[in-house]
Amino acid sequence: MNYCSVCGNPVTLAIPQGDDRERHICNHCDTIHYQNPRIITGCLVTHDKQILLCKRAIEPRKHFWTLPAGFMENGETTEEGAIRETWEEAKATVKSEGLYQIFNLPHINQVYFFYRASFLNPQSSTPLFAAGPESLEVELFSPENLPWDQLAFPVIKQTLLDYLGDREQGHFPVRDQKININALLQQNTNAQN
Amino acid sequence: MNYCSVCGNPVTLAIPQGDDRERHICNHCDTIHYQNPRIITGCLVTHDKQILLCKRAIEPRKHFWTLPAGFMENGETTEEGAIRETWEEAKATVKSEGLYQIFNLPHINQVYFFYRASFLNPQSSTPLFAAGPESLEVELFSPENLPWDQLAFPVIKQTLLDYLGDREQGHFPVRDQKININALLQQNTNAQN
Ligand SMILES: [Zn+2]
Ligand SMILES: [Zn+2]
Repeated sequence: MNYCSVCGNPVTLAIPQGDDRERHICNHCDTIHYQNPRIITGCLVTHDKQILLCKRAIEPRKHFWTLPAGFMENGETTEEGAIRETWEEAKATVKSEGLYQIFNLPHINQVYFFYRASFLNPQSSTPLFAAGPESLEVELFSPENLPWDQLAFPVIKQTLLDYLGDREQGHFPVRDQKININALLQQNTNAQN
Repeated sequence: MNYCSVCGNPVTLAIPQGDDRERHICNHCDTIHYQNPRIITGCLVTHDKQILLCKRAIEPRKHFWTLPAGFMENGETTEEGAIRETWEEAKATVKSEGLYQIFNLPHINQVYFFYRASFLNPQSSTPLFAAGPESLEVELFSPENLPWDQLAFPVIKQTLLDYLGDREQGHFPVRDQKININALLQQNTNAQN
């Protein structure tokens, strides 16, 4: 951020009175511009024990598989956003079966929501899913065929691992987890050595 | 938003190619400025069956009672933010007992997180809590003395109601709820008639 979005004058970085961290401040109109984490919301759609994944058509992680998910928009709930993103990326009309996963990614200022979901009309004569503009392919994977080496993000791998374990137990507690980027980098370094 | 925060030129409202809603777009540097919901995170701190509330020293809802909570910052998790806000508003050092409530407020583009929490050192010789700069008073309330008519926000009332009910049942499922502002406005209209 270089300029004030309210008045167009340059902003400076400074700690406002009564605050304890630097903000972008406009000395012309006195606006303090806060920057906050963003929410990404999506669905883990299952059908006959299979899981719906999308192959990404866009960077980052183009050609890797992901759960349909994207940035939450103003004016919607996290659940509505998850259903909308599933339509946009997988052309699948789904109903939510409840909140399942929260992931905090503080190194990139993101918070993920995943909802368990199923097709709204599984008996429909129209295709249950298709690639949206941000997907190259959309596919249902049985657990033994999941593309573990081709998953786009750590949150996707963790959600799938948790889901398969929880399904064996027959219950799906809401999980609130943190992706520890330092631990992941360490793992990768070790794997490369 | 009137001006581009990247280059300082005026922005216009338009639907970007491949998108389906209006965004603030800079035609000078081609930046699309997305606006997304913000996260508010806080704690429901309990001690000997009592609940910690703060009387707000600032607008909105100055002089009304709230759970300690505030906007999540970049670089922290929702849980870390809840603990930080509890320190800032109630000068209480707490440990989280896990995620408890998610509230979606799509009419104001906010998502609330509440964590159940307890004092980290309940036997400490220093006071367990005190009013921070955004609080006039901080107090532990027993269930029968909760200030139901003086609560700051619908999410606070709902969280307290849920908590008292869940405590009777002896378990605390994670809840994902939506505050329906139209239903609340209707209630208020009816109450005034
Ligand atoms: Zn300004
Ligand atoms: Zn610009």
